[in-house]
Amino acid sequence: MAEVYAALTTVEGLAGWWTTDTQGDGDDLGGVLRFRFGAGGFDMKVLDLDPGKRVLWEVVDGPEEWIGTEVAWNLDQVDDHTVVLFHHRGWKEPVEFMHHCSTKWAVFLMSLKSLVETGTGAPDPHDVKIDNWN
Amino acid sequence: MAEVYAALTTVEGLAGWWTTDTQGDGDDLGGVLRFRFGAGGFDMKVLDLDPGKRVLWEVVDGPEEWIGTEVAWNLDQVDDHTVVLFHHRGWKEPVEFMHHCSTKWAVFLMSLKSLVETGTGAPDPHDVKIDNWN
Repeated sequence: MAEVYAALTTVEGLAGWWTTDTQGDGDDLGGVLRFRFGAGGFDMKVLDLDPGKRVLWEVVDGPEEWIGTEVAWNLDQVDDHTVVLFHHRGWKEPVEFMHHCSTKWAVFLMSLKSLVETGTGAPDPHDVKIDNWN
Repeated sequence: MAEVYAALTTVEGLAGWWTTDTQGDGDDLGGVLRFRFGAGGFDMKVLDLDPGKRVLWEVVDGPEEWIGTEVAWNLDQVDDHTVVLFHHRGWKEPVEFMHHCSTKWAVFLMSLKSLVETGTGAPDPHDVKIDNWN
């Protein structure tokens, strides 16, 4: 669980599975993380941290549909598995962009899994492109 | 679009990306498809078909949480992309099993993409295992 928590709260960890262009502060309440991708990016404010167990972000800048939404990570240990329970909640409408993001989040969750298990993830720009929105 | 539609309506296509143990009839209204996995399976009744464009299934047997839910596939052509808009709707409660299935569906959507693009998917039992529920 400590390894997954580090991958969610350190710039080095986040850059290993989500986007190589990650900056900011993910390990302090109120810190802001800046994630940039080819097509744009997101700024996340750290709303809650429970070391090894829980990370909560609020989207403070990015695509209009994302602003004000929350990204929550809850970690649980079940036998020899660290279970990552992930939510991106607060979408105003179930638009097609949300469905794109849902599948794309899963692709990045697999990248996080790969980073923790093998030491190598597939962050942007090395991520799997899923559709014409990338 | 014809290739994706075939991958959703023929036993050979479905066995190429979801589970190798697929039987039944996916190309007739009212037909039933039987999908079996290591841990269990699903029976789907074909509720609607619009060749090349749309496939709709109702879950008629499987885990209790799935029975009565609908799996919808809507295909659209955008430039040189066939866009697959996928829903699994009608869950009674947003239980943890739903979140597992959401990520697992994305893994299988990537398997479908791979089948259509390269001729080889990753159906069960060759699928990516995502967690302790598989």
